Amino acid sequence: MRVLNFSAGPAQLPLPVLARARDELLDWQDSGMSVMEDSHRSKRFVACAAGTEAGLRSVLGIPEDYLVLFLQGGASAQFAAVPMNLTQPGDPVGFLKTGSWSAKAIAEAKNQGLDVRVLADEAETRYTTVPAQGSYAIVRELAYLHYTPNETIGGVEFDYVPQAGDVPLVADASSTILSRPLDVSQFGVLFAGAQKNMGPAGLAVAIVRPDLAGKARPGTPAIWNYGTMAAADSMVNTPPTFSIYLLGLVCDWIAELGGLETMAARNQEKARALYAAIDASDFYSNPVAPNARSRMNVPFTLAVPELDAAFLEGAAQAGMVNLKGHRSVGGMRASIYNAMPLEGVMTLIDYMAEFERNRA
Amino acid sequence: MRVLNFSAGPAQLPLPVLARARDELLDWQDSGMSVMEDSHRSKRFVACAAGTEAGLRSVLGIPEDYLVLFLQGGASAQFAAVPMNLTQPGDPVGFLKTGSWSAKAIAEAKNQGLDVRVLADEAETRYTTVPAQGSYAIVRELAYLHYTPNETIGGVEFDYVPQAGDVPLVADASSTILSRPLDVSQFGVLFAGAQKNMGPAGLAVAIVRPDLAGKARPGTPAIWNYGTMAAADSMVNTPPTFSIYLLGLVCDWIAELGGLETMAARNQEKARALYAAIDASDFYSNPVAPNARSRMNVPFTLAVPELDAAFLEGAAQAGMVNLKGHRSVGGMRASIYNAMPLEGVMTLIDYMAEFERNRA
Repeated sequence: MRVLNFSAGPAQLPLPVLARARDELLDWQDSGMSVMEDSHRSKRFVACAAGTEAGLRSVLGIPEDYLVLFLQGGASAQFAAVPMNLTQPGDPVGFLKTGSWSAKAIAEAKNQGLDVRVLADEAETRYTTVPAQGSYAIVRELAYLHYTPNETIGGVEFDYVPQAGDVPLVADASSTILSRPLDVSQFGVLFAGAQKNMGPAGLAVAIVRPDLAGKARPGTPAIWNYGTMAAADSMVNTPPTFSIYLLGLVCDWIAELGGLETMAARNQEKARALYAAIDASDFYSNPVAPNARSRMNVPFTLAVPELDAAFLEGAAQAGMVNLKGHRSVGGMRASIYNAMPLEGVMTLIDYMAEFERNRA
Repeated sequence: MRVLNFSAGPAQLPLPVLARARDELLDWQDSGMSVMEDSHRSKRFVACAAGTEAGLRSVLGIPEDYLVLFLQGGASAQFAAVPMNLTQPGDPVGFLKTGSWSAKAIAEAKNQGLDVRVLADEAETRYTTVPAQGSYAIVRELAYLHYTPNETIGGVEFDYVPQAGDVPLVADASSTILSRPLDVSQFGVLFAGAQKNMGPAGLAVAIVRPDLAGKARPGTPAIWNYGTMAAADSMVNTPPTFSIYLLGLVCDWIAELGGLETMAARNQEKARALYAAIDASDFYSNPVAPNARSRMNVPFTLAVPELDAAFLEGAAQAGMVNLKGHRSVGGMRASIYNAMPLEGVMTLIDYMAEFERNRA
């Protein structure tokens, strides 16, 4: 019996992807071994990794000259790797601060010795808003502008791509990548941890505009050096082979369903239904400004916090798990990534209504 | 049909471990989800990671006060992380250079701005030897002494642990960890990529003497900072959950078979049989000094290199794969990690003898 898993990440994976991984876990491509056991230098695995890259390029529409790097350390590694690759110590960089993840990226940029300029800080609204396009001043000397298109914890998502002019735009797209179409050419570096919409934890993808690679500062570890990694097809050392294989299967699954337009429509429908249910109720509420509401992570609180435990227990009994909100926000959080079907969201909505009727 | 997989890494995994992973890939611990899909903050996964740590501590006999860290980036990440955590720029550090991996560690230490002193360089013997204990001078000002207990490419293994006095001993144990008992208390930092004897690629383990953590230089990325990671139980960010789970299963498998004493006996028997077959033949040869021969990676050449392709083809037809030697060494290489049974090595030996009779 499979549950409906609303985890914020690692998160539910598409069942056909998992089933295929299971079926070939002991014998992959008639090789007599698991993909996990094959040499990363084997023809088979090199073709697998190339297939994953091709699948990702196709699904996301990545410009041909952009680099696609498979890296380790999650998005948090990129909080350090972006400064190492794009700046010298002391360089000014801009940040839009919209929640926990942009705050962590800021801390690491300071740790890397940068002159961090927070151009917008939504702490004033307790991270329930995004700054309006054009409401922050981007000066030309910035080495880059970093933002977080979707904040997983606060459930806050930009409804636009910031215009940064000639300043390279850096995006931590961990919890929004592959959820909808994206014009990659607007970005200098677009990176994401895999464990929401792409696959299991342990893999990060960095999509890098070619002119931004090959300029890493001295001391950049070889495995985080964009130029070095690109020249080695992301195999300066042994890559996380199983995760790369699974990302390929996920890209195939998205393509078979119709690509990112289909994903966007599905995700929009799921989010609209859930927010509508919350807004129609006096018992549930979501604090985020309507234009900034995340399609991926929907936090909501109960009017009677004392009922949180009963809500979670009832949900678990009905096969819905990992709904507890982040400790910094409280209440509930339903993460509804690509792998969560509309039926799953409708089941949650029905449960919420029933719980409200019975307990409120 | 499972093959005999002699890959140097990623490498063959124990079949019972893989079979169990397959059986519970869609439903782990009656959770209704894969271990890959569970939140790393869930009680279930936190217990799983703690179990893996306990299993590794038990099997390896790790002193209680030593830190056990689960990290990303492979052993190559530690080539940078060790300098970041243990030194300031300009500090003198010592290296024993016995092959490709110690050479890469040296390059990264230089990249991190250290005063690298190569105390022994076996390049003179084309990396077929290890320096004798006491043949190199270890001065007290060294921040650490780095060596590679087993060089995967050259097939060269130290038959002793270097005595470094008060200088912390750092070992890249990627291709020897869990192959035999080890006195961990002799080491300052013992690290290893998982993809040989521990599990799939994408996980590295660092075992750190407690006084060496918490002193990272400014600019050390949070996810590589030993002190920060230890304080967060290796979860500063999302860890590679599936790999940690599999390492736990591998530790259980070793414990059930009798622990590292049993592993050492098995590995010794396998290596002895294979080297004996090579030495008894005029057709096959291994260049490594007898005392330095690796128990894990056995390179060998054919007297007639033109027959290499035929040897590999015949081996593949007989179900033995990934025997091609590293391009820098040529010939063949049989990696015979824990998961390779004695019967597999005997099958290889029989094939080698038959090939020699038929073709030589």
